[in-house]
Amino acid sequence: MVSFESDYNNGVQPEILHRLFDTNDEQTSGYGNDPYCDQAKEKIRHACQMGNADIYFLIGGTQTNATMIDALLAPGEGVIATDMAHINVHEAGAVEAFGHKVLALPSADTKLTAQQVADYMELFLADPSHEHEVQPGMIYITLPTEMGLIYSQEELGALYDMARRYHLALYVDGARLGYGLAAEGTDMTLPFLAHHCDAFYIGGTKVGAMFGEAVVFSQQRPPRGFFTTIKRHGALLAKGRMLGLQFDTLFTDDLYGRISRHAIDMAMRMKALFRKYGIKLAIDSPTNQQFVILTPEQQQRLSKSIVFEVWEQKDDRQLVCRFVTSWATSDEDLTVLEKALANG
Amino acid sequence: MVSFESDYNNGVQPEILHRLFDTNDEQTSGYGNDPYCDQAKEKIRHACQMGNADIYFLIGGTQTNATMIDALLAPGEGVIATDMAHINVHEAGAVEAFGHKVLALPSADTKLTAQQVADYMELFLADPSHEHEVQPGMIYITLPTEMGLIYSQEELGALYDMARRYHLALYVDGARLGYGLAAEGTDMTLPFLAHHCDAFYIGGTKVGAMFGEAVVFSQQRPPRGFFTTIKRHGALLAKGRMLGLQFDTLFTDDLYGRISRHAIDMAMRMKALFRKYGIKLAIDSPTNQQFVILTPEQQQRLSKSIVFEVWEQKDDRQLVCRFVTSWATSDEDLTVLEKALANG
Amino acid sequence: MVSFESDYNNGVQPEILHRLFDTNDEQTSGYGNDPYCDQAKEKIRHACQMGNADIYFLIGGTQTNATMIDALLAPGEGVIATDMAHINVHEAGAVEAFGHKVLALPSADTKLTAQQVADYMELFLADPSHEHEVQPGMIYITLPTEMGLIYSQEELGALYDMARRYHLALYVDGARLGYGLAAEGTDMTLPFLAHHCDAFYIGGTKVGAMFGEAVVFSQQRPPRGFFTTIKRHGALLAKGRMLGLQFDTLFTDDLYGRISRHAIDMAMRMKALFRKYGIKLAIDSPTNQQFVILTPEQQQRLSKSIVFEVWEQKDDRQLVCRFVTSWATSDEDLTVLEKALANG
Amino acid sequence: MVSFESDYNNGVQPEILHRLFDTNDEQTSGYGNDPYCDQAKEKIRHACQMGNADIYFLIGGTQTNATMIDALLAPGEGVIATDMAHINVHEAGAVEAFGHKVLALPSADTKLTAQQVADYMELFLADPSHEHEVQPGMIYITLPTEMGLIYSQEELGALYDMARRYHLALYVDGARLGYGLAAEGTDMTLPFLAHHCDAFYIGGTKVGAMFGEAVVFSQQRPPRGFFTTIKRHGALLAKGRMLGLQFDTLFTDDLYGRISRHAIDMAMRMKALFRKYGIKLAIDSPTNQQFVILTPEQQQRLSKSIVFEVWEQKDDRQLVCRFVTSWATSDEDLTVLEKALANG
Repeated sequence: MVSFESDYNNGVQPEILHRLFDTNDEQTSGYGNDPYCDQAKEKIRHACQMGNADIYFLIGGTQTNATMIDALLAPGEGVIATDMAHINVHEAGAVEAFGHKVLALPSADTKLTAQQVADYMELFLADPSHEHEVQPGMIYITLPTEMGLIYSQEELGALYDMARRYHLALYVDGARLGYGLAAEGTDMTLPFLAHHCDAFYIGGTKVGAMFGEAVVFSQQRPPRGFFTTIKRHGALLAKGRMLGLQFDTLFTDDLYGRISRHAIDMAMRMKALFRKYGIKLAIDSPTNQQFVILTPEQQQRLSKSIVFEVWEQKDDRQLVCRFVTSWATSDEDLTVLEKALANG
Repeated sequence: MVSFESDYNNGVQPEILHRLFDTNDEQTSGYGNDPYCDQAKEKIRHACQMGNADIYFLIGGTQTNATMIDALLAPGEGVIATDMAHINVHEAGAVEAFGHKVLALPSADTKLTAQQVADYMELFLADPSHEHEVQPGMIYITLPTEMGLIYSQEELGALYDMARRYHLALYVDGARLGYGLAAEGTDMTLPFLAHHCDAFYIGGTKVGAMFGEAVVFSQQRPPRGFFTTIKRHGALLAKGRMLGLQFDTLFTDDLYGRISRHAIDMAMRMKALFRKYGIKLAIDSPTNQQFVILTPEQQQRLSKSIVFEVWEQKDDRQLVCRFVTSWATSDEDLTVLEKALANG
Repeated sequence: MVSFESDYNNGVQPEILHRLFDTNDEQTSGYGNDPYCDQAKEKIRHACQMGNADIYFLIGGTQTNATMIDALLAPGEGVIATDMAHINVHEAGAVEAFGHKVLALPSADTKLTAQQVADYMELFLADPSHEHEVQPGMIYITLPTEMGLIYSQEELGALYDMARRYHLALYVDGARLGYGLAAEGTDMTLPFLAHHCDAFYIGGTKVGAMFGEAVVFSQQRPPRGFFTTIKRHGALLAKGRMLGLQFDTLFTDDLYGRISRHAIDMAMRMKALFRKYGIKLAIDSPTNQQFVILTPEQQQRLSKSIVFEVWEQKDDRQLVCRFVTSWATSDEDLTVLEKALANG
Repeated sequence: MVSFESDYNNGVQPEILHRLFDTNDEQTSGYGNDPYCDQAKEKIRHACQMGNADIYFLIGGTQTNATMIDALLAPGEGVIATDMAHINVHEAGAVEAFGHKVLALPSADTKLTAQQVADYMELFLADPSHEHEVQPGMIYITLPTEMGLIYSQEELGALYDMARRYHLALYVDGARLGYGLAAEGTDMTLPFLAHHCDAFYIGGTKVGAMFGEAVVFSQQRPPRGFFTTIKRHGALLAKGRMLGLQFDTLFTDDLYGRISRHAIDMAMRMKALFRKYGIKLAIDSPTNQQFVILTPEQQQRLSKSIVFEVWEQKDDRQLVCRFVTSWATSDEDLTVLEKALANG
């Protein structure tokens, strides 16, 4: 069986694993007070072309979102996001656990537009009883989005302008950021991103690491006591150097970019295969997640040799299915897929 | 100026005020441990035809909703409601403050249907990753709704069946319950309601009292430590007998019904006036809140002699405006309205 | 039976009740947007000699404390208080419900000293792992305290200096503030208090009102969106003018002071009676709460004609009992007490 | 430099690291749905002699405590612990973040006794206003404690009896559980523990793993929706098999016991060295954390060749210092320590 189930089915990208191996006998202080964390932060600052960015390492995505939203909002403020946003659907209420409401705007394709934000804010401000409502304090977007889409520089810039206009923080969930930066046809770069939001995170878990997410405060200083906030969220790793080592490796010789580009290459070849065999795309994703529409029979047949996720049942005849590539996806994996498609 | 701005613009219904006056010199223990609270509970049980209902008195609506939702849900569970529900829009995140998400379903008219609940639950249960999502634990409806609509016995019964099927609690926000029970053409009764939900509250503030909401646990015992939960929510009145006295009076000689029926009579006469003068209804409400569509010019002219609320600006030419009656609405008030409409 | 059980056993001070009566037929907007609230705020500012104080009216004490602590602290920060503080013992976890820890310091007599705060902060700052701990953000004291004690100008000034030195907010819970300002031998005044803390509240419920607490932000502006914070805490009264009317009356012709001085006079006469009849004081309180030590037999005998609270069972032979006076305490009440003591 | 700073300064115990290495190329589903997690759970059940225990893997200690306390308590209930408990001091308010109060009892030595619990509960229940207080719902102890002490079977049994008597859950924080089970002179065993509490966790991070804590529900089923609770707390690892692999290895050929016994052997030899060189113990710990009292001069001299933590400054002349052993502590490390002590 070959798995395209997700980008966290495999182990660790080998260069990272070897790094953990090679440094295992060393002794360092805990909680991120170690030279590897310092080194990694410096390399990330350099990659962002932002010498004074504040950087922290957390463990996982939901945790990072809950911590950042809690840190960037005043008590009880809300976060604007699409109704399909990860924080609105698949984080089990972690945002609400800290008292914040997700102000969900309808989205056709998991992207949020500057216009939507403007419309929402104008309606909110025009409502005479808006003091009785949750006060919007930030905008949350994912890059790439939950369905693999990306934002152009123009789109992100427009969102950031809107954030400034309405005194909202703009926070970008980059669980799969690498794939967004390596996406086919994108003009987005890490420095542009860093300079057009208040904070974002560079996802490690889904881009080759064992775990770990690097939070970057760009336009905005972290709130007073942010280290304590991390601890309060249970997001502080005792053996903190394991995070530093992973990100230091990811940002050495552009490993983060190499992993991402490989996965995108594989995903684009996969997309070509689907097209070749007449499989309809559910959405035209330029990133490592491909969404196609299968009949129940096709889904059954493909499942004999390939692991993948049924994302949504559109109707009796149409299943939206997700196929994901990663650092570990190989030519052989695609060959198996093509064989299966040819037989389907 | 005559005010139809809301049903909490006036003071206290006179019978209640006199009762407070007459008993003022008495001494009783605090926090609801007094004979008036006991008496009031007994009368409410009788009116509900439910001898073993557990009843508590809280102070205001938002507070009552937050307390009840917190009490009826397990930590982190969510509450199903319409996207126009008071808890979703106008309670400033009080539900989220205690860690619960509002699972908002789209609604055209502020009503929730049993079918919507069923569809939502089936989709939820069919989603293979539903353990990553907020678990639905209860259904919230308002009766009457935010736009003055009511539920028939059949509709409430169907919702209650659905609640049973999916192991959800059904909770009814009765901030204006009296007007729902007295609504034109309704078949809903207090005993039917009490026997077809898990808990509800009988609104006092908007039905003649100075403040106060009576929570009724019907099919379900209150959770262990509910008194402490009330205290924790800051919802425990020190001079608790003031709540008992008001509800004891409201449930003596059916004052609650008399107040409500008077307001409904006035509202129906008001609706007839709007129709007579060609004002379009935004919704055909059988309760004490009437929603009409005015042009900006009409709104300006009426505002010279009448206070009312602009509810929503539909477009440049159409303002949805709300006119509300109460125990205090008089023939003279309607005469002023008619004169204004005639001149408009 | 005569009751000294608490200062919230009686109804409303008559001047306040008549004011509610006299204004009952008026129509005003809800939620505190009415002339009575404005008037009351102006009078309180004048009494505080602080023309720019921001003032809000809430309903009850626990609610007010939870709202203010939530408003004055950053997320997750803690509040320094004595281990006997009302917020630490008798508020059912309302402070923790909003994510804040009470940093409880041991107290012999319910008072907190500037030295204790300094010692705590020095220890905290010297601890190399203090970033793993709850960050102290404010100081909470009660005036008068839970056992009826007061702070002198010097003591409050010292606490306020300490608050400045360690960047903590100083908040004063004045549930019974009137009695503290009228206490025998005190040099505390309302203007001194207002100028030596960041925020405090003037208790209404226990000083003659039906309900209501007036929050005063003195040295510090209320945080952005404080109105919404009140709503989120379920602390916003729909018929808000009832709060304005009560405080307007309390601050007209110094009713607040008159009520308080009467209760203190009664309490001091009561204390003299206890001494005359050889009853030992548990603490020498200069305010309206008197704590005495009774044997179980004495407690039984007094209970035949008088209602009072057993505060704490020190041992088999000693019960700490509380006797409280209020606006309603009369000469006759004290006569009944003296007779009971003479027979005991 | 040799480090005795903590048991999380080193990398991963080599057998575990090799296991991660050997399995790195495999593909498994995420979130703990993999054969390694299943295997590890089965081995832990066997080691606990409890075939039906429910087991979950979380990432870190503070996170695990917050998740378990939230899961075992009803909303707003409190947890009884010593005032020196990790949850009361060093978890940054993670417990309060989910609305729960730590009911801290004074402790001389970080241990909690059954008698303390009984005294607290009797006082609580005897207090006529205890409904206004946080309701105690569970007992929290650490094994070994924050200062390295252990509980005997008799002591744990007594606590468990008390928990039963007062309807409290008993939860044991086993961040360093291995060292407690291998402690000099202990009669505690894993099966005894499992059968005398409601839930506990087996610490991995501080006993050789890279990270990871294994939660065991013994007498009590996990609350409905516990998986979702883990997710809501941000405690769900995407590459969940990394947790399974580590615990599977730890519970193969008793690696968990071997690591622990090695550290205890080293700690006992260290203790003997301290005694030999006249260093006073701050507490007589039978586990891998040793606490000694040094003069500032001694602390300075030892710091030249050894890393260790100043735990607390008792006074000008006495520093309580902590020395910790782990799987990685070697004979050479002790030789360096002895040399330093001889020179000191």
